[in-house]
Amino acid sequence: MINASVCTIGDEILIGQVIDTNSAGISRSLGEAGIRVRRMLSIGDDRDEIFNNLRNELKLNPIVITTGGLGPTKDDITKAVLAELSHSSKYVENAAQMEIVYRILHSRGLEVLPNNKAQALVPENAEVIPNTLGTAPVMVFRFKEEEYGHPATLYALPGVPFEAMGMLPAVLDDIRAHNELCDIHHRNLMVYGIAESALSQKIASWEDALPKDIHLAYLPNPLTGIRLRLSIYGGHKEEEMLRIESEVAKLKGILGNLIYSDDDDSLENTVGRLLKQSGKTLSAAESCTGGEISHLITSIPGSSAYYLGSVTSYAVEVKEKVLGVPAETIEKYGVVSSEVAAAMADGVRCLTGSDYSVATTGLAGPGDDGKNPVGTVWIAVSGPAGTRTVCRNYKNDRKRNIERFAASALDFLRLYLTETKML
Amino acid sequence: MINASVCTIGDEILIGQVIDTNSAGISRSLGEAGIRVRRMLSIGDDRDEIFNNLRNELKLNPIVITTGGLGPTKDDITKAVLAELSHSSKYVENAAQMEIVYRILHSRGLEVLPNNKAQALVPENAEVIPNTLGTAPVMVFRFKEEEYGHPATLYALPGVPFEAMGMLPAVLDDIRAHNELCDIHHRNLMVYGIAESALSQKIASWEDALPKDIHLAYLPNPLTGIRLRLSIYGGHKEEEMLRIESEVAKLKGILGNLIYSDDDDSLENTVGRLLKQSGKTLSAAESCTGGEISHLITSIPGSSAYYLGSVTSYAVEVKEKVLGVPAETIEKYGVVSSEVAAAMADGVRCLTGSDYSVATTGLAGPGDDGKNPVGTVWIAVSGPAGTRTVCRNYKNDRKRNIERFAASALDFLRLYLTETKML
Repeated sequence: MINASVCTIGDEILIGQVIDTNSAGISRSLGEAGIRVRRMLSIGDDRDEIFNNLRNELKLNPIVITTGGLGPTKDDITKAVLAELSHSSKYVENAAQMEIVYRILHSRGLEVLPNNKAQALVPENAEVIPNTLGTAPVMVFRFKEEEYGHPATLYALPGVPFEAMGMLPAVLDDIRAHNELCDIHHRNLMVYGIAESALSQKIASWEDALPKDIHLAYLPNPLTGIRLRLSIYGGHKEEEMLRIESEVAKLKGILGNLIYSDDDDSLENTVGRLLKQSGKTLSAAESCTGGEISHLITSIPGSSAYYLGSVTSYAVEVKEKVLGVPAETIEKYGVVSSEVAAAMADGVRCLTGSDYSVATTGLAGPGDDGKNPVGTVWIAVSGPAGTRTVCRNYKNDRKRNIERFAASALDFLRLYLTETKML
Repeated sequence: MINASVCTIGDEILIGQVIDTNSAGISRSLGEAGIRVRRMLSIGDDRDEIFNNLRNELKLNPIVITTGGLGPTKDDITKAVLAELSHSSKYVENAAQMEIVYRILHSRGLEVLPNNKAQALVPENAEVIPNTLGTAPVMVFRFKEEEYGHPATLYALPGVPFEAMGMLPAVLDDIRAHNELCDIHHRNLMVYGIAESALSQKIASWEDALPKDIHLAYLPNPLTGIRLRLSIYGGHKEEEMLRIESEVAKLKGILGNLIYSDDDDSLENTVGRLLKQSGKTLSAAESCTGGEISHLITSIPGSSAYYLGSVTSYAVEVKEKVLGVPAETIEKYGVVSSEVAAAMADGVRCLTGSDYSVATTGLAGPGDDGKNPVGTVWIAVSGPAGTRTVCRNYKNDRKRNIERFAASALDFLRLYLTETKML
């Protein structure tokens, strides 16, 4: 595997004002393309720091990817340092990027000022990948073996995450064109509702019998569950994918509906896809999740095709008056109960006329209600096959508990939709 | 100013599975304590990488803070490398940490296994700051001038963000006890509703007249606006704070109600504080924000004291049937209009009986409605002083637009609450 360094440049990262998300995104994409990131480094907008550190990274690894420091303001000096590093004695205008600069500024109704035009100027020894998403071009600097002990290439990407991640495929194409990369064949499966340790035990004998060239990775995430990734390095794509699929088939036999998607996916998108396929509609009634379920569902473009809306019933009166939860039910079982969750789900389904609904009532913390521990949630799903409820418990802070409750509710809804075969 | 390196250790960071939030948090805290972070580095769980890179960081900077690699599993080898680096020939048990290990595992109903007990073993040349939040202790390694050309200290923190950030104050205390840190006096002001460039112009003459020893920083964030930070390095705390306050008073005169908080704060917390003070209640009606406003409001502990609930009216029928928006209003003005926003706000206030309400209707994208551009939002606030509406436009992707709409709605509500002096 070929090695790489990822380097972010900018005082805003170094003083902790901005969290660096580019490095993780770049590393993940490089890894999936068969390039191993060995170091991530963040440095400030300082000539010596940039110059010396980039030289050092080029010595250590044949591929160096930088982000940031390419803006039009005075503090962004990366381009000047790269000119020096690449022994460029002048800047040349890149026509393709200049056209993009004009197009972007005109579309915003802005005049093209000298410092905007300067964005399309690059050191003479840079190759350019025009940045279609912003004004600063992607620059490629190739260094001969004599200089760093091995041929080395530096890719300078803009710092805006949307632009950096958007231009990364073009960088990967260039890396592939200049290097013999081992093909990697991947297959993802998304799993929810089981802890990593329990999952590992459940699939232990399958994992032990896995052919030695098929690699398995567990990639857990509290909100989307565990991504299982099977990979084969090298070989003929179609043949290797067939071998992977035969292992996936066995795994599906073991895990059943713990698997919610055949690809890298989210629970809210999976639920949306199921509803869209069947032409059915959904609504939500939220207490302890406070709007998070609705927010997740509507984060999916096109969700208005199946999502009618929700009621956040934070106050007891809203549960009673808007959702029609009987006062006696609350009195008898308490707000955090199976019965109230069910009545909320039924209530919002009736109110909106949706085919399905999901509801939550629980305690996100920090305070409890004297009866249930913090982290308790009752989830209900209502639909043509009746109303189901489940109780879950998490032990996180308020923010994390709310996120977990919402993910858990979406998964419970997903199970209802698939198990009742209404689709 | 004393310089520092921050180093995260762990394959999960390097393969992009986890975004490193520790480095930003640590840098920010160090910066506010007068310690300048010059480099952030992420490396994998590899003996040579850890050993060589930590030696290099100790040569470059007198303070090195590491996070991660201290877990009980086999892949976490940082402690062994630190033993080597500190010339420790054996491990010793730390009684205070052992007690914590037992306490934590027992509270979770778990048995204390040998690899748990090993967490309380530290290299003999380590000083220990017991980690009250987890099983891995904070270790401090002090190196003499001969070794790295200057006295150097390495602080090894656990990688779990909650533990790393929670133990950081103890690390800062130790740094203060062993170094002459310049006192830094800070004062934050939170501003919303003005772009950074416009703000900079608005306060230009005040900024030009600012005493040279008072530093001003703009820290923009799309969701919380701009944090203005005034700092003085050194001097007597009370005197210097008085000087800062006199500048803050001038700034308040210029910016008026663009300032929403006198401290590092969020809009949802500010709105919550205003409502709590006055004993008034709030509800929300969301279309394009899809639950995000409600989610933000309920993310604040204790929000049930003033927040009654919300209706997410994604479908037109929910706007009409649940919120009582007249069909003629929608027909005549369109869903994305001042009139519909106002009717939604009035409707949810009536439905829940709250003192105030806030509503949104707009287009988060990607598709538009053929009339309004993507990124358009109408916001309404209803309350005892009547119903107000405003139109805003943002040019981001769906996710960012939803976040901006919600922040903008909370700010519009904040202005209504303060300007109508109902409080």
